[in-house]
Amino acid sequence: MILIQQITTLVRDADRVEHGVDLLINGNRIVRIGRVEPVEISPETTVISGKGRIVAPGFINAHTHLYQSLLKGRRDDVPLVSWCEQVTFPFVRAVLDRLWKSGDAEIGYLWSMLGAIEMIKSGITAFIDMDMNLPGVPQAWCDIGIRGIAAMSLVDQWVPNDFITAPEKLREDTLKLIEDWNQKPDEDPLVQVFLGPSAPFTCSEGLLSWILEQAERYDLGIQTHVSETSWEVEHSLETVGKTPLAYLDSIEFLSRPLLAVHGVHLTDEEIELAAERRTTVVYNPKSNMKLGSGIAPIVKMRRAGVEVALGTDGTASNDLLDPFEEMRVGVLLQKVAGEDPTALSAREIFRSATAVGARACRIDAGTIDVGKLADLIVIDPSEAHMFNLGGEVIPALVYCAKGSDVKTVIINGRVVMRDRTITTVDERAILREAKKVGETYG
Amino acid sequence: MILIQQITTLVRDADRVEHGVDLLINGNRIVRIGRVEPVEISPETTVISGKGRIVAPGFINAHTHLYQSLLKGRRDDVPLVSWCEQVTFPFVRAVLDRLWKSGDAEIGYLWSMLGAIEMIKSGITAFIDMDMNLPGVPQAWCDIGIRGIAAMSLVDQWVPNDFITAPEKLREDTLKLIEDWNQKPDEDPLVQVFLGPSAPFTCSEGLLSWILEQAERYDLGIQTHVSETSWEVEHSLETVGKTPLAYLDSIEFLSRPLLAVHGVHLTDEEIELAAERRTTVVYNPKSNMKLGSGIAPIVKMRRAGVEVALGTDGTASNDLLDPFEEMRVGVLLQKVAGEDPTALSAREIFRSATAVGARACRIDAGTIDVGKLADLIVIDPSEAHMFNLGGEVIPALVYCAKGSDVKTVIINGRVVMRDRTITTVDERAILREAKKVGETYG
Repeated sequence: MILIQQITTLVRDADRVEHGVDLLINGNRIVRIGRVEPVEISPETTVISGKGRIVAPGFINAHTHLYQSLLKGRRDDVPLVSWCEQVTFPFVRAVLDRLWKSGDAEIGYLWSMLGAIEMIKSGITAFIDMDMNLPGVPQAWCDIGIRGIAAMSLVDQWVPNDFITAPEKLREDTLKLIEDWNQKPDEDPLVQVFLGPSAPFTCSEGLLSWILEQAERYDLGIQTHVSETSWEVEHSLETVGKTPLAYLDSIEFLSRPLLAVHGVHLTDEEIELAAERRTTVVYNPKSNMKLGSGIAPIVKMRRAGVEVALGTDGTASNDLLDPFEEMRVGVLLQKVAGEDPTALSAREIFRSATAVGARACRIDAGTIDVGKLADLIVIDPSEAHMFNLGGEVIPALVYCAKGSDVKTVIINGRVVMRDRTITTVDERAILREAKKVGETYG
Repeated sequence: MILIQQITTLVRDADRVEHGVDLLINGNRIVRIGRVEPVEISPETTVISGKGRIVAPGFINAHTHLYQSLLKGRRDDVPLVSWCEQVTFPFVRAVLDRLWKSGDAEIGYLWSMLGAIEMIKSGITAFIDMDMNLPGVPQAWCDIGIRGIAAMSLVDQWVPNDFITAPEKLREDTLKLIEDWNQKPDEDPLVQVFLGPSAPFTCSEGLLSWILEQAERYDLGIQTHVSETSWEVEHSLETVGKTPLAYLDSIEFLSRPLLAVHGVHLTDEEIELAAERRTTVVYNPKSNMKLGSGIAPIVKMRRAGVEVALGTDGTASNDLLDPFEEMRVGVLLQKVAGEDPTALSAREIFRSATAVGARACRIDAGTIDVGKLADLIVIDPSEAHMFNLGGEVIPALVYCAKGSDVKTVIINGRVVMRDRTITTVDERAILREAKKVGETYG
């Protein structure tokens, strides 16, 4: 059991804030919010003081690429396609080359750990990682204790030939990942498998159909990049005669609730389509800015009833896995885009980063309620940058809080960070090892 | 003397990076960069290890309003004029009312301290504060040891009548501020006085002429808000028949090098004018985004040869005094504005936040060179979010570093923060007092 006592401010969700309550966790679930009497708890209960603290749902990062933890701070001046060619492709090539030649997969465990450490230290408790299929990647999440979704990246066209796995091997690998890692939801697994067709233009129609069949068969979520750049939209019109989301709909790919990443250049018709098909758009404001991709029409999407989750994207195009900064920039960008300070509220983006993200990721968390998974964070608002006289807590979290204010993180009923120290793995040793091994990849 | 030994990465400016050097400070100046022998230092020398650290120039925040340290996290959904009416004006009214009735000025000292603490803890070593003229405001900077410029806010029209001081009193107060606080540059003062006409539309032509005269007489810098919103441009065309900067030029107000804050809606002609008149524009990207004011044409300005400094603006419209986040957002916003990832580089914004800001603020710092003022910061890049394999240091600082990575801050040759503890004042006591006193202002 974990008891958080006398919580000064409990943010149950964007609209419900309580003060001066206790919160009790048993196993991996929240079992009580209110007053907890000493007799109710076992002697082994971990007691955490909530005095002067804000307790909130952990953040959901609905899109990232953890392998880019090894590519931080590289190139800030090239468009998406050249950036792929100069920054990500050479690294991917080196990883796959070594994996295929010698089976060496340690690097995957290390980048996955690096990303997990950064996310926990900024208050992220669950995420979707569209990544290469190295067995160490989800293993790291189990070891550190973060909730992760492996959305295995699937491609069979457009990318360099040496990245393309033979069709049977791709299918075999995908089925093996599902078998190894997709645990039953009623077991509250830390790891889920989603299918991650990289983008409509990098997958043949045959591959997309096969993906949809597997998603149906194993009841899996699907995430894909859609309409990130205007180039992609033109390319789609030229090759399949339709805009990307319209094309996906035409081949029945929206029959399951898709997570459409970016959606920067969705047309008005596609926004209506996303609302009808219950497609969730994942907004990655900082990445879209850095790559000069454009400003996603989030205000239009919300008006049309499209659900919007929040993602950081990978750290080669962001370069942080920080939900506070991502929320801030996400709101600010919508306000300036329409020169309208009322365009998107702090409350709305907080909902995207918690409850909406959790629903899209099929995780029973994102709000603090009895019966929900115990995925939550304890924030210390006592530094000068959080000084708040009579302000509301949600705007304070969105506009003033920093990752470094997160002191304690609980995921699946386990304390994974306490007073800013990761409790489950040796953070320094991992950083040293990642540097050593990373450097051998050039 | 202060010796920083074996600095792993010394960022002298945006273009010069050295490794493995020592840095020696004597009095308030940098006296040696290179190898310092033990015999050269006195026994009382403070020795700081630079191993594994990045040492860089302290950041210059070229525009803020520290009184807003008491207004963080309030309202996120109103345009500039309503925001003034609902957020800042009531507070200003309460402060002035109490000041004029009972001479109570403690609140100024407290907000000034709150802002200074937040800035030091994020790596800012100097700033311009356009603020109310309360004597405690610059006193706080002397006590904590930060370099500050009091740009006394001057208005005589447009704002509510009860904010307007009688003309003689305004002049008298201004001259008293100059007499009390404007120290001679050759004494390396911590405090300078600038004149801060709030905006062209809030000052009569008579007041602006008087301000220019005083600036000439005492050799003072001038900072004013210019073309923050499209409303202001229309209002200017209606009232004086010219756009704001063109109007200022027509009354000779650009004859001294002005710091023009915002410049979001400068016309192409005004950008040429700014270049000719050596007007420095202060870019405040986050504030312009939050208030929905627009995107400043920084790329055009740079092409025309206009110098651009960086500011956070006040914490009611930002709501952080964080140079790392401001640099990041400033670059990202320019990249997305033109859908061009090459629009503005990390190097360029770093220069704005250091060397360009220092020059505009008439401070002999902003780069790390022998003879310069010892205003510098020591950064710990060892957390996972700064993990950097073979990347360059400037992009890593701009895209990955956080305020919390700044461990030690030296201003004017004095260690004001060491290992994240402010050494000069009792931070906790100030926060408690600010809360207590702040709450009496409603």
